Amino acid sequence: TQSSHRLLAYSDALISIIATVMILPVAHTKVESSEELRQSLQLLLSAKIGVYLMTFLIVTVAWAAHIRLFQVIVRIDDCLALLNLACMMLITFLPYTFSLMAMFPENILGMLLFCGCVMVIGIIQCVIVLYAFSHPFLLNEQIQISENQNFYKSHILKVIMRVPIMCFFASILSFIFFQLSYVLLAIVVFLPYISQTLKWCRSKAIGQVEESPDEVLFYTYLPSEPLSKERVEAFSDGVYAIVATLLILDICEDNVPDPAVVQQQFGGSLIAALREYGPEYLAYFGSFATVGLLWFVHHSLFLHVTKATRFMGLLNTFSLAFVGGLPLAYQLTHEFPHHSHNELEAIQISCVIVFFAGIFQLAIWVAALYSERESLHPDVWYGGREHVFMLAKLALYPCVTLGTFFLTCVLSEFSASIFHLMEITVPFAFLLLRLLVRIGLALLRLL
Amino acid sequence: TQSSHRLLAYSDALISIIATVMILPVAHTKVESSEELRQSLQLLLSAKIGVYLMTFLIVTVAWAAHIRLFQVIVRIDDCLALLNLACMMLITFLPYTFSLMAMFPENILGMLLFCGCVMVIGIIQCVIVLYAFSHPFLLNEQIQISENQNFYKSHILKVIMRVPIMCFFASILSFIFFQLSYVLLAIVVFLPYISQTLKWCRSKAIGQVEESPDEVLFYTYLPSEPLSKERVEAFSDGVYAIVATLLILDICEDNVPDPAVVQQQFGGSLIAALREYGPEYLAYFGSFATVGLLWFVHHSLFLHVTKATRFMGLLNTFSLAFVGGLPLAYQLTHEFPHHSHNELEAIQISCVIVFFAGIFQLAIWVAALYSERESLHPDVWYGGREHVFMLAKLALYPCVTLGTFFLTCVLSEFSASIFHLMEITVPFAFLLLRLLVRIGLALLRLL
Ligand SMILES: [K+]
Ligand SMILES: [K+]
Ligand SMILES: [K+]
Ligand SMILES: [K+]
Ligand SMILES: [K+]
Ligand SMILES: [K+]
Ligand SMILES: [K+]
Repeated sequence: TQSSHRLLAYSDALISIIATVMILPVAHTKVESSEELRQSLQLLLSAKIGVYLMTFLIVTVAWAAHIRLFQVIVRIDDCLALLNLACMMLITFLPYTFSLMAMFPENILGMLLFCGCVMVIGIIQCVIVLYAFSHPFLLNEQIQISENQNFYKSHILKVIMRVPIMCFFASILSFIFFQLSYVLLAIVVFLPYISQTLKWCRSKAIGQVEESPDEVLFYTYLPSEPLSKERVEAFSDGVYAIVATLLILDICEDNVPDPAVVQQQFGGSLIAALREYGPEYLAYFGSFATVGLLWFVHHSLFLHVTKATRFMGLLNTFSLAFVGGLPLAYQLTHEFPHHSHNELEAIQISCVIVFFAGIFQLAIWVAALYSERESLHPDVWYGGREHVFMLAKLALYPCVTLGTFFLTCVLSEFSASIFHLMEITVPFAFLLLRLLVRIGLALLRLL
Repeated sequence: TQSSHRLLAYSDALISIIATVMILPVAHTKVESSEELRQSLQLLLSAKIGVYLMTFLIVTVAWAAHIRLFQVIVRIDDCLALLNLACMMLITFLPYTFSLMAMFPENILGMLLFCGCVMVIGIIQCVIVLYAFSHPFLLNEQIQISENQNFYKSHILKVIMRVPIMCFFASILSFIFFQLSYVLLAIVVFLPYISQTLKWCRSKAIGQVEESPDEVLFYTYLPSEPLSKERVEAFSDGVYAIVATLLILDICEDNVPDPAVVQQQFGGSLIAALREYGPEYLAYFGSFATVGLLWFVHHSLFLHVTKATRFMGLLNTFSLAFVGGLPLAYQLTHEFPHHSHNELEAIQISCVIVFFAGIFQLAIWVAALYSERESLHPDVWYGGREHVFMLAKLALYPCVTLGTFFLTCVLSEFSASIFHLMEITVPFAFLLLRLLVRIGLALLRLL
């Protein structure tokens, strides 16, 4: 038996890559300036963005299921490691099935492939559960010493098999009436979350429903179900790392000029040739800095979090989905002519994306404060100085981007300069934040 | 103050992406079948492979320096986190400077950019060291309680500044006599390793040289200098994860057919259109499985390692550099017509790459066995059953690929079938390895 730590870290790395990869087809869609192509392009682009968001959502749902499974199975052996790799291979194939669905919505092949993958993943997970329960030393302490092991086993198997069985029906239904199979799939994936959230809200509103002591603690789908904090961090790190480097991948591949072109068009001057790519370097450094600082805020936030819940994980997923689109938005800000309407739009879209990425981080903080005694270090409980400092860190990007957005609305002539100024000042603002907060508090006391 | 764990995990993720990214330009070079283009293509391809290997090497050297720095500084604060992000931004830019050097070897711009980046990275590292020594609670316990703190500080600063100062001279020299500056750079980067390795070999050959008790334990460049095992694992995980998903990134982007093309060329049959891409899916699953299983062997190996050394890190780097080329080789096996000479070559190259990736893993094991009392768990010390089992795991890929290589030489007609058979049987061989080893040992005893 082995600690499962590294297996989970590797799975997190794989899943975070797959969750963000569908932004690449969006990023590589060529923007044409001719008006006639515009409409069909916008359709294509919105289809691709839809695929990106759907992939991100479904892959994070699969990731949550993976976390749930390996909160029950806490030790592994060779056999489980190999079964897990097989599971990962199928998960990494899912985005492709979405691309097929988006490009050929009338064709059932994409749906069948998706259902096939999900069914095989479900079967592998069942095999993992059966194997682990037949080697009880692999299990969670709590289940290991419990007398109801068989009850736990059948409960977990039931929850796991629900999705593949529904997928089986969806794939049969798709032969008869395929629009309905999409609806069925959407229900399958989100129903447990929705129903449990509603139940939870009702219990909060009406009053605490007494829970039986023998209640199953795993696979509850409650928003307050604990989610491994370590894995949320590892997954987020993976997404932030991929997204921060997305642009340099393109730059290394596309922006090395051809020697012949340099000789003919630029009279042999490499610097002149590279100057053409100036905006792309700027977009790279700008997006790396922004993603890096958002990672920094996330890192500071999770330093203070002691217990992550499923609801916080969901908010984190939303934040990361916006982070994924950020390099693309930054790249667009430089692709259009200066002072054009398109440039202004691209800059405002960038502001909106950074704003939402920041706002969802702030929402995680608010959700943690809601049950601060369980979820947060005593240092940052409401009212302390560290609390104010953390709040300032979280509020910096939303405030700055909101300000930039409205400034560019008013002073649309100078939108690019305002945006660049924002990019340059924010890192220094973070460096001086502790000082700024102290001055702010002192000023408040003076007034 | 904060634990530096997550900062380091994020840095490892960034560096592992950057180390492997230069394989993409190699992978995306179009293979032309016309003979005339062959020669220029081979030149271009070998330049790109050179850039990939150089990037991998230099980035891992920078990574080793980063490990060394953060073995001295074990806690961080916000300021250090932000400085580290700035450092990462520059490291991720290095591959681009190599591309420029490779495409324009006569132009000094690439060299100047590289030297500039290295100098700024060096300065940032010095600032980090100065900052940490002025806040001693951030430092390693051993240095914190030491009376020679100033001695440590100046020793570390001297080691760190050596490279940027040499780069400064190299950049000046490049204006006068640029071929020499390449030589200077190569010396700068590798001299400490080479000189210390020679010293170490001499001391091993002649006999143990007595070390003064006040010897500096950090920044020694000795092959036996400890290297954080956790970070070697994190970096390797990153590389294995990126490499395993390299092909699906391409597939998701390029292999979704255009609806119009499907309508015209395939009479609306999506399955017929996708059949065209069959080989690429096969290459994806084949390379994912092989990379996954190499990860599995690496994972098993490092479960038994208790202390990693710089030398083991170097062997690991070589293994990972071959792993990086693997998806590309697998893709090539399917790009050429059946039974062609090219197909045979591609299959043999794939075998060679997997063989070397496996052999260097085996070399890590041998290096660990050399000082097994320090580096390995007692379970796997020479002679035990777990030892035999680990050896079998490590030897499986080298043996199988060697066998496949020679079989394809002899039975070149059936090379593709032999290769596919190998791909399919190896995962099952891993699953049944424990059984096979037991049977093997029993047979040995019988004989
Ligand atoms: K990770
Ligand atoms: K580009
Ligand atoms: K920018
Ligand atoms: K990692
Ligand atoms: K491809
Ligand atoms: K293959
Ligand atoms: K190394």
